[in-house]
Amino acid sequence: MSVTDELLRNAEAYAAGFTKGDLPMPPARHVAVVACMDARLNPFGLLGLEEGDAHVIRNAGGVVTEDEIRSLVISQRLLGTREIILVHHTDCGMLTFTDDDFKAQIEADTGIRPPWSPESFRDPSEDVRQSLARITANPFVPYKDQVRGFVYSVTDGTLTEVR
Amino acid sequence: MSVTDELLRNAEAYAAGFTKGDLPMPPARHVAVVACMDARLNPFGLLGLEEGDAHVIRNAGGVVTEDEIRSLVISQRLLGTREIILVHHTDCGMLTFTDDDFKAQIEADTGIRPPWSPESFRDPSEDVRQSLARITANPFVPYKDQVRGFVYSVTDGTLTEVR
Repeated sequence: MSVTDELLRNAEAYAAGFTKGDLPMPPARHVAVVACMDARLNPFGLLGLEEGDAHVIRNAGGVVTEDEIRSLVISQRLLGTREIILVHHTDCGMLTFTDDDFKAQIEADTGIRPPWSPESFRDPSEDVRQSLARITANPFVPYKDQVRGFVYSVTDGTLTEVR
Repeated sequence: MSVTDELLRNAEAYAAGFTKGDLPMPPARHVAVVACMDARLNPFGLLGLEEGDAHVIRNAGGVVTEDEIRSLVISQRLLGTREIILVHHTDCGMLTFTDDDFKAQIEADTGIRPPWSPESFRDPSEDVRQSLARITANPFVPYKDQVRGFVYSVTDGTLTEVR
């Protein structure tokens, strides 16, 4: 039995107890969260979110690339969110490699060098500032008054704002 | 007080009760989930995930674009995941517009036409197949034996596999 099959059993239990079938499409709290995909980071638990509250966008690092801009633009322009919360974290996998080395490994393995940036970084706080700067500079994201960035500690569960 | 400030209070409560500070970086269940950012979709709740179990990648639609490939490649090559679960859902915001109209609206508003595809779609199941096909065709994702896609119903909480 695959892990996927095991998780599908959990999904059956979730559906059996499901009571939230009438929530509207736009997020009730009008907020979009951009966070790292890291397994130790649970945005719903951390921020006390309930189903229906917020858009949650996640990727390797929680970095803002073109696809996060796409998601944020849809979130704000079509679905009414007005605040953005960025969450990077300590002990991130993105700290463990360099873009050049990773691309060279992939090229050695596949014969093809990825045409995209892996987006590794040296310091989570600095990369939060980089992601904030990318949002600030983007011409398509309309609402930038409430965009704040944080580093989550995977060892103590705290959230520290990056200024 | 902003919504962000309210959510930061929730984060203080989460940290106060935090007991999972010794989890390893690689996901315990060796699985990566790619899901829509929709506020009604709670991947942890739906799949019965705990902190430490799985990478969770999310964006507008749950579509596989270059940034999801980047995240999946890092997930599999550096952090040991071997299965991929794709989750789109019913009543998705991506069903409510066309790429051409949305880009024209943004151009009318900002004077600049986005150089990226908004990735709207007409049918969640068909777009799951499209995302599966993008993973299958990608030369950088090494493990493709266990890649399965689903449509989540926001009205009844069920998950239906796309074949």
